[in-house]
Parts: sequence; structure tokens; C-alpha cells
Amino acid sequence: MSRFITIKDIARKLDISVSTVSRALRDTYDVNRETREKVLAMANALNYRPNFNATGLVNRSSHNLAVILPFVTNYYFSAVITGIQEVAYQQDYNIILHITNDSPERERAIIKNLAASNLDGLLVAISSDADACAHFQQVIDSGVPIVFFDRVPDAIKTSKVMQDDYNGAFDAVEHLIGRGYQKIAHIGGPQGLGFTRKRKKGFLDALAKHGLPVNEEWIIHSGFSREDGEADALKLLKQKKRPDAIFAANDRKAIGALMALKKSGIKIGAQMGIIGFTNDPASTIVSPTLSTIAEPAFEIGKRSCELLLKHISKRNFIPEEVILPGTLIERESTLR
Amino acid sequence: MSRFITIKDIARKLDISVSTVSRALRDTYDVNRETREKVLAMANALNYRPNFNATGLVNRSSHNLAVILPFVTNYYFSAVITGIQEVAYQQDYNIILHITNDSPERERAIIKNLAASNLDGLLVAISSDADACAHFQQVIDSGVPIVFFDRVPDAIKTSKVMQDDYNGAFDAVEHLIGRGYQKIAHIGGPQGLGFTRKRKKGFLDALAKHGLPVNEEWIIHSGFSREDGEADALKLLKQKKRPDAIFAANDRKAIGALMALKKSGIKIGAQMGIIGFTNDPASTIVSPTLSTIAEPAFEIGKRSCELLLKHISKRNFIPEEVILPGTLIERESTLR
Repeated sequence: MSRFITIKDIARKLDISVSTVSRALRDTYDVNRETREKVLAMANALNYRPNFNATGLVNRSSHNLAVILPFVTNYYFSAVITGIQEVAYQQDYNIILHITNDSPERERAIIKNLAASNLDGLLVAISSDADACAHFQQVIDSGVPIVFFDRVPDAIKTSKVMQDDYNGAFDAVEHLIGRGYQKIAHIGGPQGLGFTRKRKKGFLDALAKHGLPVNEEWIIHSGFSREDGEADALKLLKQKKRPDAIFAANDRKAIGALMALKKSGIKIGAQMGIIGFTNDPASTIVSPTLSTIAEPAFEIGKRSCELLLKHISKRNFIPEEVILPGTLIERESTLR
Repeated sequence: MSRFITIKDIARKLDISVSTVSRALRDTYDVNRETREKVLAMANALNYRPNFNATGLVNRSSHNLAVILPFVTNYYFSAVITGIQEVAYQQDYNIILHITNDSPERERAIIKNLAASNLDGLLVAISSDADACAHFQQVIDSGVPIVFFDRVPDAIKTSKVMQDDYNGAFDAVEHLIGRGYQKIAHIGGPQGLGFTRKRKKGFLDALAKHGLPVNEEWIIHSGFSREDGEADALKLLKQKKRPDAIFAANDRKAIGALMALKKSGIKIGAQMGIIGFTNDPASTIVSPTLSTIAEPAFEIGKRSCELLLKHISKRNFIPEEVILPGTLIERESTLR
């Protein structure tokens, strides 16, 4: 690779001061439009790249963003990353990816070892058990902005981007009720997570609205895997009073439940309705196909990254909470 | 975050020279073991992080690796990333993630804009149509090592990590033959990719070994998506001479084919055997479940990253080609 172009090269070519070039590139108020356009044209002609090395001198920007999340091997998070990447690529930012494996210890170790000097901001989905979020507050206090998405800590005041978990769950359960199911169970995620609580609340409020009973034995909390869904469904099957439908906190659990029930001879739909939450591509592969609430995963990635860039460019940017609606998708698993 | 610890702090604490600390941390031959251990213990006690900023002064390492790949929203690549991340995390390296969306233009733009000054090395799976790989050769020539995985360019001499595409395909087709299928079709990937050619060659050689005919109309090349698999299968159905089994280049295509054929009233297994390649979790969700060749995706990520770190630590490291075997997994889609 050739020697990196700096703002000095641009200044020399245009025979103006380095300071003017720097201000033109930052678009400050005291540079006239004509000068700014000349500078930008020359920067472009020389293939000047602020993230190569010069920016550090100009405005201390590294053009690096860290993304910290539990997994990439599931559809939801890989779609979120793709959305983040799309915005970052357009704006010439790099994504530094950290995977916690859903371990709070690893999450803390990653934060402890972060090369904060080399980061403009963080995008984070916290691990399942991360109740104590002091390590994130420290990062924010050190002047590096964070935007949380999907799995967000309630205690930290910063921008957050989520799907509408409450209304999504409410819609899912109303869909079951509209199809005639009356005894509705919920297989949820770990109790500590905010979005788990919101989906459960949507479930409970939909039952309440329609005067349906809440049976505590029909509410099971466990993990988010297909295996968890299988185990939860088999627990429901063993109960004296059996539910006639299940609202699962995500599609992987719903698919596990569907497959386990099918294996046990239950007719999905006719004897037991099932609805999930995500719209994982697997929900159209499973047979019968799975009704679900489609999450705007790609859009959540995009909006999170856009918000973070606002925090980076404007230190006094007021935190925003963005809540994106899900969409009910009716498939075979809720056909009676 | 507190002030960054530098090697000067370590030197001051131990009352030895900065140069000795630097050499001890690099493990050069002229530092005795006792000194080295004292330095490492102090570095550890002070929570010294070479990737914060000091390393640039010591050995010009940024501890950043770039990973460039077509997608993250498929199981194979997300599992590879997880393997890469596992090694990088243990060795205190950061992963900078770039997604090409399988576009050669975007791939070239990413390479052009790479902050090479800030990278120790690259891990790359090339995009489907990337025949011209001069941009990668330029990176290597500039002194930044690259290890390719899965989708590797034949023309560039550097380390590569792949699954055994040829033998995996051969085993898949022999499995079909062993189950009694005689008229075997192949729905493959784009013709330009090396691993596509290898899987096709394994298919052809297995047919030849068993004296089975090659019907050119039963070999279809298209993309890697489920939709491509559906379209390919429907093309096969329309032919006067119908095959009785399909070897698909990946599981997504196989699943698309399976679902399209099922919809057309074909009994999977009995009337048409199907085998894929990947062992995507979806292959156990589809009904009937899909026989396949399991790829060691996580292991490919790990080995690629380990090899890259060898190239980084030893400039004259001789390139290695690592080929990891796949495993035949027999499921319902090849039961007659």
C-alpha cells in the first residue's frame, strides 16, 4: 500500500493552511462553502482516507466501533450485525466484533481489555445473566458512547433500540385467542432479561383482556435453545391440565416444542397451537410451518448504528429509545 | 478508563531498562529466563495491555485482524467466525469484521479502504465471482499476511484452510449409491468457485468408480440459496428422464429442493433421495430430515486464525494448506 495521504498533502496541493483543511473536513461554521468543496474534491482525488491515520490528529476519531453480543450463530444476531455493517460501511467505520458466548464473565473481560483509546463507540446486546452493568457505565463515563440493542440494561441511561416485545407478544397471544385457543401456555426465556419480562407481560395482558385464566403451571422459564423448547413442551405435556396452545419467547424454542410434540403424537394446530417470535428462516422449514412475530432484526442493526454515530458526532446528543414494531405472520402451526 | 500502562511503567517498577522490558515481552534470545518471568509477572500485575497503545512502539503490532467474508447470516460462516473469535480472544486479538454481501465490487472497495497500517493480518473467504484476486496479492506484497478459508483463490500462494470438498462429495454420492440410487443428479454452486469444482469432481468420480452414467442434463449450476435449490429441483422434475437422487452442493439448496419436491407430491427418500453438504441445524428441522456431509466450520475458523497468527509472529513462515475432513451424517432423506 502506498504512503498514506494526510491533510498536509491536501493543504499543499491547494496552497491553503492545514488548519483550514482540517476545519473544512469537519464542516465547521467558519469555512466558506467554496473552500469546503475544493477541499472535499481534492481529498477525493487523492483518495484521502480519514480512518487511515490522519483523523487521529484532526479529531481523535479512530473510525472503529465495537459490537459486543452473545452469539453470531443465530439468525437474529447475524441479521442485526448485517444491518450494523451496512451503515458502518457507508460511513467508513470499522466493526470490531466481540462474542461473549452469553457469559457475563467473558463480557466483563472483554470490556476490561477494550482498547478504548482506539474506539469511537460501542454497540451492545448484554448477556443473559448480566444484571450488574457497572462495567458499561464506566465505559460511558470515560467518554465512549454506547448504544444497546435487543438485550438492554434498564439501569443505564443511553440510547437503546429494541423491537416492540410487549406488543409483539400481545399480538401473538391475541392471534391464538382469535383462532379459538383458550388454554394458553408460555415458554419464556431467562427471567432476568428485560425483553423476557416484556414478552411475558404482553402474554399476561392479552389473557387478561380476553378474560382467560392464567395458570402458573403453564408458564415455564428456561433458555433460548431448541432443546430448551423441547424440554419445556414435554413438561407441559405431563401436566394433568394440558394447555391447547403455546406462545414461545422465540422461534428456536417454538420449533423445539413443535418437533417434540409432533414426536409425541400431538397434532400441531388441531390439538396444540404454537406461535413463536423472531421469524427465523427455520420457521418456514419446519413442518407444519410456524406462525410467529417477525422481528425487524436488520433494521434494529441499522438504527442502532445510526444512533451511535449521532452520539459520536455530537457529544451532547440526548439519548433516544427506539422501539420498532414486529409483524404477525400467520402460518400452519396455528391452524385448527 | 485509567491511564494506559506502558512498558516504561514496568521498567520503572522493576528498576531495569525499557529496552530490556521490550525484549523480554518479545521473548528475544538475549533476555534470561528469570528477567523475562519478572517482567511478565509485573506486566500482569499492572494489567499491561500490549494492544492498548504501547505495542505500536515495541513491535508495530496493532493486535487487529480483519475478517472478510460474503455473509454472516448463514450457519456455516457464523460458525467459522465463532471459531476465529475463540482463538483471537484467547490471544488478545481483535476481529474487525467486513461483509462483502458476496459482491466483488464491495470486496475490492473494502480492500482499497483497509486501514492496513492498523492491521496485523487478514482472514478471507472470497466472494462468489471474485476471479481477479490482484487486490489480495497487493495486501500480501505490502507485508500484511492473509489466510484464506473455505472460498480460496487458486492463484495466490499463502496459507489456506478448507474442508475436504472432493472427498466429502465423493462420500455423499457413494452413500446414495450404497442406498440403491442409480440416477444421480447434482445441483451445484457457481462454476467459478474452486470448492464448487471440487464437489462436482467428487460427484463425477464417485459415479465413474461405480460405472454409473453421467447425464449432463442432471448437472445444474446456480446460486447457494434455498430458492436456487427449489428452482434447480423443479428443472430436474420437468425432464423426460428423471433422476432418482440429488446431491446438492450445500444444505440450503438441498432443503429448497426437498421442500419443492415434497410440494410436487414426490416422496422424499422412496422416490427421490437427497443429500446436502454443511450440516446446517436446519437439516434436522426439515421433514424428512436431511442426510448431509458435516463440515467442520468452527474448526476451520480456529485453524485459520491459528495459522494467521503464525504468519504474523514469523514473517518467513511457510504457507500451509490445511484440509479438514467432513463426516457423513445419514438421516431420513436418503432412506428408500
